[in-house]
Amino acid sequence: MQATQDPQRDILVREVGLRDGLQIHPQFMPTAAKLAWVRAEAAAGVPEIEVTSYVPPKLIPQFIDAEALSLESLKIPSLVVAALIPNAKGAERGFNLKVHKLNFVMSVSRTHNEKNVRRSREDSLADFARICAMRDALEPAYRPVVVGGLSTALGCSYEGPVATKSVLHYAEALLHAGADELVIADTVGFATPKLVRNTMEQVLKLAGDVPVGAHFHDTRGTGLANVLAAIEAGCSRFDASLAGLGGCPFAPGATGNIVMDDLCFMLDGMGLRTGVDLEALIGVRKIVAESLPDIPMHGGLARAGLPKGYQRLGTGFPVEVCA
Amino acid sequence: MQATQDPQRDILVREVGLRDGLQIHPQFMPTAAKLAWVRAEAAAGVPEIEVTSYVPPKLIPQFIDAEALSLESLKIPSLVVAALIPNAKGAERGFNLKVHKLNFVMSVSRTHNEKNVRRSREDSLADFARICAMRDALEPAYRPVVVGGLSTALGCSYEGPVATKSVLHYAEALLHAGADELVIADTVGFATPKLVRNTMEQVLKLAGDVPVGAHFHDTRGTGLANVLAAIEAGCSRFDASLAGLGGCPFAPGATGNIVMDDLCFMLDGMGLRTGVDLEALIGVRKIVAESLPDIPMHGGLARAGLPKGYQRLGTGFPVEVCA
Repeated sequence: MQATQDPQRDILVREVGLRDGLQIHPQFMPTAAKLAWVRAEAAAGVPEIEVTSYVPPKLIPQFIDAEALSLESLKIPSLVVAALIPNAKGAERGFNLKVHKLNFVMSVSRTHNEKNVRRSREDSLADFARICAMRDALEPAYRPVVVGGLSTALGCSYEGPVATKSVLHYAEALLHAGADELVIADTVGFATPKLVRNTMEQVLKLAGDVPVGAHFHDTRGTGLANVLAAIEAGCSRFDASLAGLGGCPFAPGATGNIVMDDLCFMLDGMGLRTGVDLEALIGVRKIVAESLPDIPMHGGLARAGLPKGYQRLGTGFPVEVCA
Repeated sequence: MQATQDPQRDILVREVGLRDGLQIHPQFMPTAAKLAWVRAEAAAGVPEIEVTSYVPPKLIPQFIDAEALSLESLKIPSLVVAALIPNAKGAERGFNLKVHKLNFVMSVSRTHNEKNVRRSREDSLADFARICAMRDALEPAYRPVVVGGLSTALGCSYEGPVATKSVLHYAEALLHAGADELVIADTVGFATPKLVRNTMEQVLKLAGDVPVGAHFHDTRGTGLANVLAAIEAGCSRFDASLAGLGGCPFAPGATGNIVMDDLCFMLDGMGLRTGVDLEALIGVRKIVAESLPDIPMHGGLARAGLPKGYQRLGTGFPVEVCA
């Protein structure tokens, strides 16, 4: 398994609900509530949060407070502050704000890339190369991690199946352009575990020492099974949303990301350390529920509670019982 | 992996919604609707259905039509008709009706067994031995398969952790008494994949040629990941409920079984043949929804639909793309 670059954690979980969860929600979440969410989830032990997206606010008004939210989040000790970028213009905003990580997205399928970022995949790649060159021109102390994310890598709502060789082609192109990290995304929740394992094994092999994360949507119930398959392939970084918020405006039928709370419960029960306090994490849901009472919230752990007799923080009882 | 005793199927899926799904629902589902459900799901390719429970109807009025439903279900060609039995009295009803399979249940945890079947585990075991002796006294042509089911095998709402050595102890006792088959049940949805794999590996080893099935509840979101872990351990039989109906009146906080529709989608996408037509299966939900409009129904596949370009019946596109 790839290392998480933190000896205290076996798996790095990344909260993406503030970006992927809020981008399709019509109601603006006040900046103070977003910040309370970021602070509480960081306090619960989530090490990395994608706090916003540097897309034009006129396209997605939810992200009109991207600057303020980024700057305030950067004040939280030890939190890795990330943001999505669709292009070089977004990257520039991120460079100026000095966030730690910029997640560039392009889609493996032609149609989804055109709908989502309004250009060809070749133009996305050329832009990514420019972004990496801009990063390299910065002083080393201010260089953020630039992530190359591949959406619709496991299926596309417009085109259907996506060939694994296309995923490898674009993964290689992103690495060649200078990606510090890759993310393989099942944007529309088509994937099942065999495809996930196969794809992740091949991408991880291609990437070598470059970390590769996975981003699953739980559209058809297979989200956590796909996580298990990815772990078995060697992946140790996963995106998830608190309460499974999320979706994609340009992916018909797509529903929320995998549920962060249930993900952490599963990993914890397997003895894989995330650094996350499960009860504290469940508590964060209240901030979202109170600020956006109409947003659909998912998750079994929050509904059912921790199992009786459960030992927290990486020592979930199943593992002890097995020993 | 254990064989499914059917060369057309890699995995045997068993519908338990008519029993596990309906037993806690306060509203009676008319026998005609139950029968329509059984017929439609058999027609969709589900090979085995637990149609009812031979508990006293005064305890669970939902099962007042157990005899009629069993007899009508037995007229459906090729369907394996199963029913739950809590004791020898229930077994006698099953023997008289000549159903194909009787699923005896006892719990690995003392408290749950006392609450669920009102006696000690030792009394349950002695009763199971009597049931097996009754079976052996029948003419060979009329002997049903007698299954020994172990509830709370992966955790208990009353007692918390359940030691794997207790599971093995009771599994061995059931085998010794004459079980034709075992089922390991995560009645209250505590399990995570590592415990599942560990437990299933050990029980399968113990059981040798005796088939071992798994019964998961999706209480904390880990249901399908647990299926994947069980498959990796060699298990090829899974209980599930259409639309994830289910729960247990004596297991606080337990929610529905794993969703049959999502389970079949996952297996199909992995190239594991179930014999189930996914679209026909989704169509069966209408019968339940119309008859019991208040029952909570779950499932991602039914909400999102099959992925675009999906090939049905064991040839889900992800596998083809990988090939």
